[in-house]
Amino acid sequence: MRILLVNGNTSDEVTETLAGVARDAAGPDTEITWATGAFGVRLIGHRAEASLAEHAVLERIAEHADTVDGVLIGVSGDTALRAARAMVDVPVVGMTEAAMLMACMLGGRFGLITFSTPSTPLYRELVESHGLMARLAGMRTIDVTFAQAFGERDSMTAPILEAADALIGEDGAETLIVVGAAGAGLAANLQPRVPVPLLDGITCGVLLVEALIRLGAPKPTRGSYALPPGNLVKGLSAVLTDRLKAHDS
Amino acid sequence: MRILLVNGNTSDEVTETLAGVARDAAGPDTEITWATGAFGVRLIGHRAEASLAEHAVLERIAEHADTVDGVLIGVSGDTALRAARAMVDVPVVGMTEAAMLMACMLGGRFGLITFSTPSTPLYRELVESHGLMARLAGMRTIDVTFAQAFGERDSMTAPILEAADALIGEDGAETLIVVGAAGAGLAANLQPRVPVPLLDGITCGVLLVEALIRLGAPKPTRGSYALPPGNLVKGLSAVLTDRLKAHDS
Amino acid sequence: MRILLVNGNTSDEVTETLAGVARDAAGPDTEITWATGAFGVRLIGHRAEASLAEHAVLERIAEHADTVDGVLIGVSGDTALRAARAMVDVPVVGMTEAAMLMACMLGGRFGLITFSTPSTPLYRELVESHGLMARLAGMRTIDVTFAQAFGERDSMTAPILEAADALIGEDGAETLIVVGAAGAGLAANLQPRVPVPLLDGITCGVLLVEALIRLGAPKPTRGSYALPPGNLVKGLSAVLTDRLKAHDS
Amino acid sequence: MRILLVNGNTSDEVTETLAGVARDAAGPDTEITWATGAFGVRLIGHRAEASLAEHAVLERIAEHADTVDGVLIGVSGDTALRAARAMVDVPVVGMTEAAMLMACMLGGRFGLITFSTPSTPLYRELVESHGLMARLAGMRTIDVTFAQAFGERDSMTAPILEAADALIGEDGAETLIVVGAAGAGLAANLQPRVPVPLLDGITCGVLLVEALIRLGAPKPTRGSYALPPGNLVKGLSAVLTDRLKAHDS
Amino acid sequence: MRILLVNGNTSDEVTETLAGVARDAAGPDTEITWATGAFGVRLIGHRAEASLAEHAVLERIAEHADTVDGVLIGVSGDTALRAARAMVDVPVVGMTEAAMLMACMLGGRFGLITFSTPSTPLYRELVESHGLMARLAGMRTIDVTFAQAFGERDSMTAPILEAADALIGEDGAETLIVVGAAGAGLAANLQPRVPVPLLDGITCGVLLVEALIRLGAPKPTRGSYALPPGNLVKGLSAVLTDRLKAHDS
Amino acid sequence: MRILLVNGNTSDEVTETLAGVARDAAGPDTEITWATGAFGVRLIGHRAEASLAEHAVLERIAEHADTVDGVLIGVSGDTALRAARAMVDVPVVGMTEAAMLMACMLGGRFGLITFSTPSTPLYRELVESHGLMARLAGMRTIDVTFAQAFGERDSMTAPILEAADALIGEDGAETLIVVGAAGAGLAANLQPRVPVPLLDGITCGVLLVEALIRLGAPKPTRGSYALPPGNLVKGLSAVLTDRLKAHDS
Repeated sequence: MRILLVNGNTSDEVTETLAGVARDAAGPDTEITWATGAFGVRLIGHRAEASLAEHAVLERIAEHADTVDGVLIGVSGDTALRAARAMVDVPVVGMTEAAMLMACMLGGRFGLITFSTPSTPLYRELVESHGLMARLAGMRTIDVTFAQAFGERDSMTAPILEAADALIGEDGAETLIVVGAAGAGLAANLQPRVPVPLLDGITCGVLLVEALIRLGAPKPTRGSYALPPGNLVKGLSAVLTDRLKAHDS
Repeated sequence: MRILLVNGNTSDEVTETLAGVARDAAGPDTEITWATGAFGVRLIGHRAEASLAEHAVLERIAEHADTVDGVLIGVSGDTALRAARAMVDVPVVGMTEAAMLMACMLGGRFGLITFSTPSTPLYRELVESHGLMARLAGMRTIDVTFAQAFGERDSMTAPILEAADALIGEDGAETLIVVGAAGAGLAANLQPRVPVPLLDGITCGVLLVEALIRLGAPKPTRGSYALPPGNLVKGLSAVLTDRLKAHDS
Repeated sequence: MRILLVNGNTSDEVTETLAGVARDAAGPDTEITWATGAFGVRLIGHRAEASLAEHAVLERIAEHADTVDGVLIGVSGDTALRAARAMVDVPVVGMTEAAMLMACMLGGRFGLITFSTPSTPLYRELVESHGLMARLAGMRTIDVTFAQAFGERDSMTAPILEAADALIGEDGAETLIVVGAAGAGLAANLQPRVPVPLLDGITCGVLLVEALIRLGAPKPTRGSYALPPGNLVKGLSAVLTDRLKAHDS
Repeated sequence: MRILLVNGNTSDEVTETLAGVARDAAGPDTEITWATGAFGVRLIGHRAEASLAEHAVLERIAEHADTVDGVLIGVSGDTALRAARAMVDVPVVGMTEAAMLMACMLGGRFGLITFSTPSTPLYRELVESHGLMARLAGMRTIDVTFAQAFGERDSMTAPILEAADALIGEDGAETLIVVGAAGAGLAANLQPRVPVPLLDGITCGVLLVEALIRLGAPKPTRGSYALPPGNLVKGLSAVLTDRLKAHDS
Repeated sequence: MRILLVNGNTSDEVTETLAGVARDAAGPDTEITWATGAFGVRLIGHRAEASLAEHAVLERIAEHADTVDGVLIGVSGDTALRAARAMVDVPVVGMTEAAMLMACMLGGRFGLITFSTPSTPLYRELVESHGLMARLAGMRTIDVTFAQAFGERDSMTAPILEAADALIGEDGAETLIVVGAAGAGLAANLQPRVPVPLLDGITCGVLLVEALIRLGAPKPTRGSYALPPGNLVKGLSAVLTDRLKAHDS
Repeated sequence: MRILLVNGNTSDEVTETLAGVARDAAGPDTEITWATGAFGVRLIGHRAEASLAEHAVLERIAEHADTVDGVLIGVSGDTALRAARAMVDVPVVGMTEAAMLMACMLGGRFGLITFSTPSTPLYRELVESHGLMARLAGMRTIDVTFAQAFGERDSMTAPILEAADALIGEDGAETLIVVGAAGAGLAANLQPRVPVPLLDGITCGVLLVEALIRLGAPKPTRGSYALPPGNLVKGLSAVLTDRLKAHDS
């Protein structure tokens, strides 16, 4: 099976980091292909940047969806998740959604470790949007620079272990999620030093997209996840236009 | 004061309908200016269409925000509301948000009248995203065509009155909101035949943007609603790039 | 337009402080009139004091409602809000309700700064009663004396700034509300030293009552906010009796 | 032990109905004494009437609390419950609170049968205020006149049985509460025809006040349920003044 | 009346401690009888131990239910509460359920003091399962050994008082519950040093079982609390088999 | 990999039905092994029957856990799920949990189709216990006999399709779950006639246990999902005793 990993950021080096983690997680028969947002910002942090990335993510998915069996959205905000899920007829999973649902199956409430104070409220809203507030034990934030997150990862070890300890000991978390691109790769390395499961969204996401592909549930033909009904379209790329326009127009 | 009304749909005729209602609601010293999405679909219905409109709405707001005192998002899904609110330093309100908060001040729980079965789950998610589920009495949907919604509005009278009656009598709604562009204009006309307040988002939105402008609260400099911190930007329009790019880059 | 500001406390000096803030917030065509509770306590703190003030507030509103266009309840507990809203046919808003809804439109979750530990649970219950718990980031309490709150306000500056910092930094508040009579006046003064909007209920309340008056929604004739249906009344003041008694009795 | 039953309505005949039910429920060593509101309306239905009754209920409780061991508030809205509980040092229970908590111990979710459409939203708010929404299966309303409720009770049998059947069969209720004065007396009579427990607030209330008296928990000296701290009081009856005024003033 | 106290642990000495507290709480006409789990562990701490105790508790209740008027489950997790309540036709109450509902009637939100960090999440789940999260102020845990909990109780005094202070001062608790067997006996002794009610589940449970017995609500014949409909049974004790098997099989 | 399917009912024919569905869902390298409860009832319906099955399920898991890589609990109530998850060091998933989490990834809110009115409240409680109430659109119940559920399945087709239509059209469900053993097998057959995904817990469960096995998260050593700490054990089977007893006792 073929899984598309979409990075809504514009940075190829981030995509490659994620793709490496995805390949490690994938089954022997799974091929990971990937795409980076064509426009937007290097690493989404601000609400406006996340909002604009919805377009970039959808465009990439529209380009590739016909040649893959499933899609993993490799942006920590699960950017454009519901839109993509409704637009194409293969399974689509968000990386943070994947980590949270995997955490649910490991038991108890989960804690999130995030990497930017100003965007932390967005993760709370993300948990709410998935209807999972009852499973959230707490969130802890470590402010890191882009350089730290993708170059000098060792500098993040101590603060992550500290955050883990606080989430477990003070907030009652029984599983931990290292959110975002920073978590991909780091989680596996730090797991031996943490007394509860330490999850990253890319690993969880690949496994769950594979599970959904094998499940083979049909595309809904009713409800808000049915394909676009066809509309008058203006100013979008050819692939998006093709997916949204009225079929007889 | 000057208020920008942004329509995330690409249809100028819808924008003009909304602008007319907005002008009627505005105070004597308020000027209403408006903008239509440069790309996207004629009337947003599907999740993918709503998601893409975030970009179109933000682009229009980025163009005009320096010359207005406040922004009203004239799309029923409050498209790009939080992103816009964080991106610019004038108040931004969503039309459905406005109607719901006004309904809160009229008392009790509100009912929503929507106009497309497939997109009704999106309004439930919208209420949830505003944290207002405890104030939602129910939703009723009337499926209408574009022609009906913007041309033959009389055909909508009977089903709206029926929906109103069900929301009040069965669901316990004490205020009603006619959602979306369809509601703008219709609510005022039908109010005399409905025993509880019948609100539309454009009228409520203009009044609340005016209130926020007069409040004059400062732009936050901490948290997720502070201005974008500056990033590496790629492939966006000049106005958006200017708002998101690192100031010294 | 004419707005009645009702203080459910018996202290005229508190009413005058509130009225001053209200006049500053009001539009050029708005006249603020005010009334102080005829019976009760100087400054409501205890549950029993708040409960008794419902009668005092309703009596004052019954006296003035025919000669004003809207009512702002100037008691931090939004005392008798729903009862007054249902009893008269002009809009009625509570000061804390107003601040919370305005905070919703500024984005994110809000924090409350309150001024008496024993009454802090009442504010939590108030937020719950408005269905806004999902928007509450946290509450911080500063215990002040009546003398401090209305005479030596400078002594409150440092603890309020400290509370603000904790609400933003620890609880994730993106807007702050200085609750009650103490907040009226103080908020504007301290705003320059706080990095997020700092709201007071009187300013917000005047703006929102004005918005509701201009909205002109009709009085409901069904539901729990319709006028009193008429009853056998005993032992109430003439104005209250007149509003509650059966019209043909 | 001595229990005060307070009726916040002004109608002695309602009080006597309630007192009869209370005496039947009371233990052999329990004396039931009762008091009717000195002012207000015959039978509370409207929000303003409920709000004013808070004063009347508190006044009656202030008069009697020193000579009883516990108080049962015999108004379906649990009028002034929290205020009274904080004002006096004997246990205070509301009749609907009592029925709901007893229902919790019988298992599952409960259904409410209410008797006036316009006031039904108030019961929903009451359940919310007790934090018991997760235990509410549904509400059904039968509109009855005062004459029916207290004179021709047989006319209520069929609609109550119908409401019971709908609450059990459609809403999943596993216990039922016949709300208010109408429920007192009726519940016991109709129980044989209903397949799940059918509770009334007076019976449940007497039993739970007795349990609280025997528990003998001390009056809190911290928090919002401690006695009033003492205040400047104006225009209240001697008994209320005595309870609220500063002890050394 | 006769009340069965069931201890799902296998330790007779714990049962005896609980029975002593129960006798002190019971009315003059109440006889307390008790039973200890026939199999399982000495003191339930782990999820698996709690789960297995469901069988032990049900078996004991099946043996005694015909000769008692009500049952109090004397295990802090309210082990097998709903199953027992449905299986027999006398009232069944859980000790922690009892303490929480009693706390509701004392007002405000309650705090829990628990005695083992690893099992604290189970108490949070217990509160959720009773639908009482809105009434939970917080939980504090003191890790004690079996020897401390049942032998050297004085060593627990200081940490319990500290936990109480934190729950009141930081979490806003207005009533406290000392959870489990450890709480039985301790609560009464420590009450004089705590400024809010300090409840234990056995005392509360006896009082509430007595109230339910006197209420005399009938056994439901519909819903999930009706008696078992009769099934093919295998490998259970005679008393359990008799309660679950098809009556004509 | 090897997955144990545990049926908490005592009926081998049900186990075999489930095992067949499990084998169909399993990957080529997965071996499905299964176990039937040694004691209890033929098909769990009543609360007491579900409670007793916890012991039976745990015993079977204790016997097999050392020789498998993961466990799927094949009882619709996810019987003993948390206890088993904590007791053993391989992943454990409940069949209804699995279907609900898979439904979450397909989007929107899900509807449950259940097969016995008296036990339907238990499924609502199950959804609550997983913290997924925000994702539940509704439940519909079809009462079937054991013979129908496992012999004459065609008689269930029409009512299931009707229930599906009501859940989609009236309750807004976007995915459906056919609950329990009855769902296993039926879902796949009926899928072509239903316009949204129709899930069964066994198929979903096998896929998610496989995903968890491949994830390889470590057994927690802190919190409520760590292994049992060791206790004094009495009267349990050797395998359970071995897992729960103190290692040095």
